[in-house]
Amino acid sequence: MHAYRSHTCAALSAANAGEEVRLSGWVHRVRDHGGVLFIDLRDHYGITQILCDGDSPAFAALEKVRAEWVIRIDGKVKLRDASLINAKIPTGEIEVYAREVEVLGPVEGDLPVQVFGEPEYPEETRLTYRFLDLRRDSLHQNMMLRSNVVRSLRNRMWDRGFTEFQTPIITASSPEGARDFLVPSRLHPGKFYALPQAPQQFKQLIMVAGFDRYFQIAPCFRDEDPRADRSPTDFYQLDIEMSFVKQEDVFAAVQPVIQGLFEEFGKGKKVDPNWPLIAYRDALKWYGSDKPDLRNPIKMADVSEHFKDSGFAIFAKLLENEGTEVRAIPAPTGGSRKFCDRMNAFAQANGLPGMGYIFWRSAEDGSMEAAGPIAKALGAERTEAIRTQLNLAEGDAVFFLGGKAEQFESVAGKARNEIGRELGLTETDTFRFAWIVDFPMYEKTDEGKIDFSHNPFSMPQGGLEALMGDPLKVYAYQYDLACNGYELVSGGIRNHRPDIMFKAFELAGYPKEEVEKRFGGMVKAFRYGAPPHGGCAAGIDRIVMLLADTANIREVIMFPMNQRAEDLMMGAPSEPMNEQLRELRLRVLPKDA
Amino acid sequence: MHAYRSHTCAALSAANAGEEVRLSGWVHRVRDHGGVLFIDLRDHYGITQILCDGDSPAFAALEKVRAEWVIRIDGKVKLRDASLINAKIPTGEIEVYAREVEVLGPVEGDLPVQVFGEPEYPEETRLTYRFLDLRRDSLHQNMMLRSNVVRSLRNRMWDRGFTEFQTPIITASSPEGARDFLVPSRLHPGKFYALPQAPQQFKQLIMVAGFDRYFQIAPCFRDEDPRADRSPTDFYQLDIEMSFVKQEDVFAAVQPVIQGLFEEFGKGKKVDPNWPLIAYRDALKWYGSDKPDLRNPIKMADVSEHFKDSGFAIFAKLLENEGTEVRAIPAPTGGSRKFCDRMNAFAQANGLPGMGYIFWRSAEDGSMEAAGPIAKALGAERTEAIRTQLNLAEGDAVFFLGGKAEQFESVAGKARNEIGRELGLTETDTFRFAWIVDFPMYEKTDEGKIDFSHNPFSMPQGGLEALMGDPLKVYAYQYDLACNGYELVSGGIRNHRPDIMFKAFELAGYPKEEVEKRFGGMVKAFRYGAPPHGGCAAGIDRIVMLLADTANIREVIMFPMNQRAEDLMMGAPSEPMNEQLRELRLRVLPKDA
Repeated sequence: MHAYRSHTCAALSAANAGEEVRLSGWVHRVRDHGGVLFIDLRDHYGITQILCDGDSPAFAALEKVRAEWVIRIDGKVKLRDASLINAKIPTGEIEVYAREVEVLGPVEGDLPVQVFGEPEYPEETRLTYRFLDLRRDSLHQNMMLRSNVVRSLRNRMWDRGFTEFQTPIITASSPEGARDFLVPSRLHPGKFYALPQAPQQFKQLIMVAGFDRYFQIAPCFRDEDPRADRSPTDFYQLDIEMSFVKQEDVFAAVQPVIQGLFEEFGKGKKVDPNWPLIAYRDALKWYGSDKPDLRNPIKMADVSEHFKDSGFAIFAKLLENEGTEVRAIPAPTGGSRKFCDRMNAFAQANGLPGMGYIFWRSAEDGSMEAAGPIAKALGAERTEAIRTQLNLAEGDAVFFLGGKAEQFESVAGKARNEIGRELGLTETDTFRFAWIVDFPMYEKTDEGKIDFSHNPFSMPQGGLEALMGDPLKVYAYQYDLACNGYELVSGGIRNHRPDIMFKAFELAGYPKEEVEKRFGGMVKAFRYGAPPHGGCAAGIDRIVMLLADTANIREVIMFPMNQRAEDLMMGAPSEPMNEQLRELRLRVLPKDA
Repeated sequence: MHAYRSHTCAALSAANAGEEVRLSGWVHRVRDHGGVLFIDLRDHYGITQILCDGDSPAFAALEKVRAEWVIRIDGKVKLRDASLINAKIPTGEIEVYAREVEVLGPVEGDLPVQVFGEPEYPEETRLTYRFLDLRRDSLHQNMMLRSNVVRSLRNRMWDRGFTEFQTPIITASSPEGARDFLVPSRLHPGKFYALPQAPQQFKQLIMVAGFDRYFQIAPCFRDEDPRADRSPTDFYQLDIEMSFVKQEDVFAAVQPVIQGLFEEFGKGKKVDPNWPLIAYRDALKWYGSDKPDLRNPIKMADVSEHFKDSGFAIFAKLLENEGTEVRAIPAPTGGSRKFCDRMNAFAQANGLPGMGYIFWRSAEDGSMEAAGPIAKALGAERTEAIRTQLNLAEGDAVFFLGGKAEQFESVAGKARNEIGRELGLTETDTFRFAWIVDFPMYEKTDEGKIDFSHNPFSMPQGGLEALMGDPLKVYAYQYDLACNGYELVSGGIRNHRPDIMFKAFELAGYPKEEVEKRFGGMVKAFRYGAPPHGGCAAGIDRIVMLLADTANIREVIMFPMNQRAEDLMMGAPSEPMNEQLRELRLRVLPKDA
């Protein structure tokens, strides 16, 4: 017989009754029923109940084992009494009567993190003893989910003709615009490598090198300031690039992969196969967000015309200023003063003066009437016109926000989420996707300067010619995939033409020399026969979080950093040895230097 | 029609004759046959011949295109004349008559690296223009091979019940003993992370966390001094770990994976399914190497007894010293003075005084005679005893090396390789594997100190008890897989018992506190219920080099560093910006500091 096990802890069933078996695993739980011991023995695969009594030579030894000890058990498989069968686990029909026990790995002292029952602990404790934390079924399942998701993504990409290539991890700074992690060079003291913020330049170079459809499950490194829902050091993305493609080719390649993945791992939630294309400007207008949650049916609308020169003086006056508008958030079934007041307070809590509203109720005579101060000031005709435009009815409400869109849009988006959730309008059992397209290439900074609004390496729609006009009117071939309020994918058709690239950077105030210096590797490559190409990257951590239904990124990473970018288990970062610094010719300056 | 192509450059065949098609790709070669242009258009998938003459509206534009321009061609598929059919390529029966051409990506100036014909360039030039270099068919094939090998390894591991988990890349120093790459922390100035030399501790922690069969295609980082056949910064390994296993379980898991891989990608070479277990000491004795090339049938032997007190004074005298021996390298078919002298010179070129020999030839009377000075000094009887022991015959030779094994063994191994190759004894169409086992746990250093001879984390055979005796007699559960003279895999059964670990380190002179400090994360984990576990790691770069039949590691890496650890294409490493150093509170010291 094998030294440690004849079966795993999930393998035995009634069919094995009477067999002599050997099992190894962790003591999940010990119950002492007065001279009869029940031990739940756990391994990666499952749990098997071990039984022992005073007649067994193993009894004395088994009496001493405690939770989380690793033991080996030899014994005989017995059918449980019908009343004791546990239908929830595959081994629930049997138990193993222990005749021999060997302690393979005891626990010294007290367990700092209990596994059975998953009691709560401070996160720092859980991270310090991550190897215990990971024994919990919930985390164990999350890790298996993540691994299976990555595997499925890989297979789906291969099946669609993509090839995975590994790009360098020790390399030069990449132009993603976040902060690099630096790696000092020992062979070239005073010089530094950088960890890649993304394989952006490399994947484009792979296209220039003549490979056609690339993907990679790629680690990306950014020295980020702490934030709850992201890793402070690194993350993984499904990185994709394709040659000889237009935007719609990328969409056609990505949709079946992501949709299939969500169908496979979505635990029965619906996956809407209709992925609309929504212009960036429209997403903001309709949903107050460039990553709208389309499970929420609320679509905002411009209702300025009804307020212009109206009796509602605040908005009427506001609309006299250029660039202002009144945005309506329809709230079907929200037609009560109590709800409307609560949403008004929500807007105030989010930094706005408030959110006016109208709601429609049944009047005493049974007819429908519009209620609220705005309805009164606006008059019946205009109020009715608003109701008609928004297709609202008795029992519904509408909220208004006025001013410049950029000032109220993000709160409008939050209010839309809140309304959808509060009124139960937002689906909870569906994944809904949308491609957000036509991002503006440039924006005006607060200082009035023209700068790139998103990715400087995307191809401007209209090419070189478009760059000769008003930069603020140029759209980029750039796109995001939104799912349930999150950005899952981001990408673009790249600018593979050096002439267009230099012009695009020139408009944003970067002279040619600067572009050559910072992105020399890629720009040089584009001079030697570059194909049109484009692609995208999908955030794997985010995808797994959505599928695992958790908002904490540390629940989907095997060995995560804490929010201060420390590995509490391994003790990183730590003081270097003097010799290491000497070899690198580095000195750490004192705090007040 | 699609903006760039209706077909790839490998898709068209005689069945498409008459169709209007659109192709995009690189101009592989232009031939101008006096008014008729032939262009080989190349993409990732293949090559299609484009034809154009003065009747075509595309002629003027096509006349201007040069090698490596990216163009789009619209035209009609035509059958080639029977005499012009190229059976070597899938599109060899047709050509496309171009009617329209669009230049998608021109080449500015001269090409620093030509693609067609793969002419030679200095490696620095090739690396600087890697994106051109990679367009060559040979490198393109190598990259596809590597990607397919990694994919196959992954699938084979999943198929055998292993799960892939990603372990941290920004972490603490790992105990592999090589030099770490450090990463300064911005949030904790003065402290540093390290890039993992291998995921050794993490994979063991994954076992302690209750996962059963782990693997990972893992990037490993070592700050190595330059050497031709390895990357100076990083490499990839297939990392494997299993719980509740003995050494033979690891072998049983790994063999089908590696054997299947070599069968799949070995281009028809035989893959010997017999993987012998050879003790480390025997490997040195028989083959002069712990990674023997078993395609070579030569097995060395100890022939000391025949030289003891013999007439060959040099060896007879030498054998009076303790720890000495005479090793024989049999050389079937090597029985000529010319060959024997050449091998003697080889030994001298490798730092030994020379290599004595005997060879057997046909005497004038037709009988067999032993030739060479050693035979004479040794006398007929002893010479014949040697011949019998080594099973040699007329036309064969044997070489002798004497002294302490550690002084001549590595040259003996080289001589064995040389003899096998020179005499054509070594197979060239086979992969032969062997597990090298029973590595000694400790060795005596030149200073007479006891130190670990290989991996300090392997379980000593015999456990704690064995550590109570002579350390130099303790073997470790540690193993390598040798293939054709290379080490492909290395691994061990781990020491999961803190008591045995502290004792093992104590013998090597490391106090408990030092072990706790350096390997705290892992040692702490072993106190909370650790399962017996073991595993191994297979070098992916090396495997691909063997399968691609290349000795240059840069031929199997997409974007390799040069031997000075520089990325010539991206310009890494480079000077950091002052602000970056300030944020990290670092100062670079001047060269003479």
